[in-house]
Amino acid sequence: MSTTNETNPTDAPHGARPASWVPGADGSPYGVTNLPYGVFRAAGREPRIGVRIADLVFDLAAAESAGLVLAAGAFGSATLNGFMALGRPQWTSVRQRLVELFTAPEHREAVEPLLVPLTEVELTLPFEVADYVDFYSSEHHASNVGQIFRPGQPPLLPNWKHLPIGYHGRAGTVVVSGTPVVRPCGQRSTPDGPVFGPSVRLDIEAEVGFVVGVPSPLGQPVAVADFTDHVFGVVLVNDWSARDVQAWEYQPLGPFLGKSFATSVSAWVTPLDALADAFVPAPEQDPAVLDYLRDDPHLGLDLRLVVEWNGERVTEPPFAGMYWTPAQQLAHLTVNGASLRTGDLYASGTVSGPERGQVGSFLELTWGGAEPVELGDGTRTFLADGDTVTVTATAPGPAGTVVALGEVTGTILPAPRR
Amino acid sequence: MSTTNETNPTDAPHGARPASWVPGADGSPYGVTNLPYGVFRAAGREPRIGVRIADLVFDLAAAESAGLVLAAGAFGSATLNGFMALGRPQWTSVRQRLVELFTAPEHREAVEPLLVPLTEVELTLPFEVADYVDFYSSEHHASNVGQIFRPGQPPLLPNWKHLPIGYHGRAGTVVVSGTPVVRPCGQRSTPDGPVFGPSVRLDIEAEVGFVVGVPSPLGQPVAVADFTDHVFGVVLVNDWSARDVQAWEYQPLGPFLGKSFATSVSAWVTPLDALADAFVPAPEQDPAVLDYLRDDPHLGLDLRLVVEWNGERVTEPPFAGMYWTPAQQLAHLTVNGASLRTGDLYASGTVSGPERGQVGSFLELTWGGAEPVELGDGTRTFLADGDTVTVTATAPGPAGTVVALGEVTGTILPAPRR
Repeated sequence: MSTTNETNPTDAPHGARPASWVPGADGSPYGVTNLPYGVFRAAGREPRIGVRIADLVFDLAAAESAGLVLAAGAFGSATLNGFMALGRPQWTSVRQRLVELFTAPEHREAVEPLLVPLTEVELTLPFEVADYVDFYSSEHHASNVGQIFRPGQPPLLPNWKHLPIGYHGRAGTVVVSGTPVVRPCGQRSTPDGPVFGPSVRLDIEAEVGFVVGVPSPLGQPVAVADFTDHVFGVVLVNDWSARDVQAWEYQPLGPFLGKSFATSVSAWVTPLDALADAFVPAPEQDPAVLDYLRDDPHLGLDLRLVVEWNGERVTEPPFAGMYWTPAQQLAHLTVNGASLRTGDLYASGTVSGPERGQVGSFLELTWGGAEPVELGDGTRTFLADGDTVTVTATAPGPAGTVVALGEVTGTILPAPRR
Repeated sequence: MSTTNETNPTDAPHGARPASWVPGADGSPYGVTNLPYGVFRAAGREPRIGVRIADLVFDLAAAESAGLVLAAGAFGSATLNGFMALGRPQWTSVRQRLVELFTAPEHREAVEPLLVPLTEVELTLPFEVADYVDFYSSEHHASNVGQIFRPGQPPLLPNWKHLPIGYHGRAGTVVVSGTPVVRPCGQRSTPDGPVFGPSVRLDIEAEVGFVVGVPSPLGQPVAVADFTDHVFGVVLVNDWSARDVQAWEYQPLGPFLGKSFATSVSAWVTPLDALADAFVPAPEQDPAVLDYLRDDPHLGLDLRLVVEWNGERVTEPPFAGMYWTPAQQLAHLTVNGASLRTGDLYASGTVSGPERGQVGSFLELTWGGAEPVELGDGTRTFLADGDTVTVTATAPGPAGTVVALGEVTGTILPAPRR
């Protein structure tokens, strides 16, 4: 038992990891304590739901058809939305059944034919995104951005420690990991007035996203304590950002085209149950928050992100230090009566720790472009065409194991010629 | 002919209005020159698509089944999305066929049994909203808000005349006209720090919304000239706003909970073809806009809005004076490569004219609450529980006729007790 019940808001039991008969599963960060869900397409076939184990994907559509798992028919779909809508008891029972199938040798004969090597499939967007909200919940990130954009002024605005600042992004441009990102064009400000052209300050934002499974009705806020009833799982997010476009457009209504050209998410949705051992006390909040934001226990997630820029590890943002917790974000998002839909995605905001090597954006890493970084293939401030950025993350699993989140990666393509 | 071709970007011919055999159609603002689409539910039946004529709704699902209209099966649905995705040639041919059915006496026998009185149906949300964007395109509104919130400073921010300022709203809380609006709770700032409770400055924003039918791929901007290829029609919008919540939360990422509790839209989507005679030159833009925003002809829509507060006409916002046109808004929204989906909704922002009696929000009408208005049942600054606000609009149709947009109405319910 690696943690106490006080830090486990899910139904998943802590404990020793069972051994799996699946080749490569034991010792893999995608072992039986992980089991993320996704949607895959084998050559010449329609997309279907699967669960990852080791470097294989288990065909859940076929498994449900064969009676190996029961999910109310939800696996006969090209998105996870139907399954995510079923709710935590069903999520947990399916997960328990999958562990049984992957560990009990008597199931090997039925299960093994439905395991497909990842090398033979393409992964597609795992769920249909309903609304996409992006928060701004790292104190270090918000302070860094404040210092870069408003030097000499207090780095945090007066509201920041009273509520999780957030805004709505464009759900229709959420894309799956691996999708190329075309450099956006837009307006940017110059001393001679605004000009139009390809963004010259294209950046990343390494974030963690929470995926809503169970909806809530209009007019009925979701309490902090009900977080695990509604949130199905976690994705990694790269909220690509054109800083020059954003800087010119964002007053007074917030970011718009500087963000809406693409937001990448991992192909795998890690169920909250796989992160039972990763819940840890979140940073103390001072001043005290208003009642509706008070979560007790006040828990964050010990997710350790790694950002690779053209294959070089440039930063390691620690999610555990985020000021606002996912439960607080959900409670805030709905406290005005806003309803939730299955497929709602809310992201944490850029994950930045206190050190330069822990920031989640290149704006911070190069301090607004003033301090370039050296990569193997040259110097960078912001992204060059052809650059690839990959965000990965791991979390502690039971009994000393490691749980990996699905990576989110993307390569920059040149802006279209006009 | 009331206008020239230079001001008619649709395929719809200008001309004299044909006489209709449908009872009440001739002389109605919902005559054969209007024909808005919606989704209705008759007692005990599933929602289905219909088109309004006079005070009747023509059952298009039944009409398509009977072979009276052809729409690739799109009318066998509970939303307009499938029909809207078909594109302008199909929209126009269906419209021409409907005019034929409602005017040629030989069709009366087949058509009349499929006409249902509006009094016998409930109207539901006419389309599934994909992404919802809200612009801020009235110069008078932006100037008024600037003067109220930033007295002594220039009323417009430096970017305002260079691009149509906008942001994403919450698609999942777009509701159909008639849906009650529960007063939202949230944080507001006081001299003693933030407090939580029901909004005390609940307001309206009278707007016009544009509904996207034909999608566009990621990475491919939509030119101003392609506006009518993508936009199917128009709805009236009331973007309810909690000004106290908004004022405290909106820096630096824009409005969030102050808006996301409810946005009401009319039950009827007026096709652009019905507004062929309403296109008028839009206000001249100075400074000149960047190339991608240049629309020639530069056309707005002569829609005349009326806002009733508890049945009293309090303002009459003129849409024709909007600084940014719908075609410019669409081009801006996609210039960074953002894709469009069928069901995307983008609203104009609050429609305000130069006079106090032409503003589209109560924030402006009462000048930030400083100048209350007298209604028959008492004095108001912002909305009281039980208040009803109804926005209607008309446009010039062919040959001196009038085309009415569907109304958008809502009544405020008290905040939930906590």
